[in-house]
Amino acid sequence: MPAPIQFHFDFSSPYGYIGAEKIEALAARHGRGVDWHPMLLGVAFRTTGSQPLTTIPLKGDYTKHDVPRSARFHDVALVMPSKFPIATQAPARIVLWQRERDAWRCGALVKTLYRAYFVDDRDIGDPDIAADVAATTGLDREAARAAIDDPAWKDALRREVEAAMAKGVFGSPFVFVPRGEGHDPGEPFWGSDRFDQIDRWLAKGGF
Amino acid sequence: MPAPIQFHFDFSSPYGYIGAEKIEALAARHGRGVDWHPMLLGVAFRTTGSQPLTTIPLKGDYTKHDVPRSARFHDVALVMPSKFPIATQAPARIVLWQRERDAWRCGALVKTLYRAYFVDDRDIGDPDIAADVAATTGLDREAARAAIDDPAWKDALRREVEAAMAKGVFGSPFVFVPRGEGHDPGEPFWGSDRFDQIDRWLAKGGF
Repeated sequence: MPAPIQFHFDFSSPYGYIGAEKIEALAARHGRGVDWHPMLLGVAFRTTGSQPLTTIPLKGDYTKHDVPRSARFHDVALVMPSKFPIATQAPARIVLWQRERDAWRCGALVKTLYRAYFVDDRDIGDPDIAADVAATTGLDREAARAAIDDPAWKDALRREVEAAMAKGVFGSPFVFVPRGEGHDPGEPFWGSDRFDQIDRWLAKGGF
Repeated sequence: MPAPIQFHFDFSSPYGYIGAEKIEALAARHGRGVDWHPMLLGVAFRTTGSQPLTTIPLKGDYTKHDVPRSARFHDVALVMPSKFPIATQAPARIVLWQRERDAWRCGALVKTLYRAYFVDDRDIGDPDIAADVAATTGLDREAARAAIDDPAWKDALRREVEAAMAKGVFGSPFVFVPRGEGHDPGEPFWGSDRFDQIDRWLAKGGF
């Protein structure tokens, strides 16, 4: 089986959520799996000088209009959360913890956490809520809750974010299609609006 | 005939160029024309706190890779100019001057100026070069050159940019699909990567 697609995302990113809902079907059409990489956009924003989209003059108003419209366009259920943006260390650490235990079930976990935030308006930035939501996928609630405060998983998330930025990740979603050339991170695609390009790239091996 | 699509762009924007190459065919499929609105992104950046994409850490490197790839994806000829970005007052004023004289020929003028910059590497920010290029579309070279320095057209461009920002324009390309509701500017779409949404919006009258 060819190398999986690398999917980087922040749980506070609505376009990341839309992308997470679409990436597995896109990858599967080309016989690929998906590796899930939680990201902290706030760290990247310190390097790029950016800030949460909705807080930027002009761009913020547009984004609040574009997000629900893009969700409708892609047939993804979405209700902008009452608290936005949120800090996403808690759900990100649960994903890293679960990824090491059972990478195959990561996709279901990521989508369940994302939907709790972007459909059911639950503040998954709260460690207790993140653990509650994760438990609905069959995970051990107390073990997931403990992972959030565990220095080992805090450190793992720090390293994950550093590694992503070293590969060039600065937004969400951010996808790499492996090119199979050693340590090359792959062909980079930023945004849920590059999925048409990813599709053609996978079909033709480049363009 | 239904109201034309409003196309806002900056001559220094590669995604604006890609959009300019595609918008007329997209509009024509739905029986629409295109109104051309030159923009000065630098003015908008003072409001949004942004800067030219290629100068931003991480995002700059990605953009330099994404621009030529997106041009190939959309089958548009593009060579990144040796001088980038450029000030675009000169070509913008020629477009406003020509728009008042003969709006129907604006599309050909915009695309000729854009191609001079993004295919032939000519610095259309230079007033003499902008006038030379405009003359290849049949315009009076000296009259076009004079318009660039004419206070009336300087003022017209200032008003054009202010009006665009009052409608919410902050990037390039920026498209409005008129909804026919009085003074409403229309449904806004930012980026050459929203053309699939524009297409569906025009086909279905919204979604």
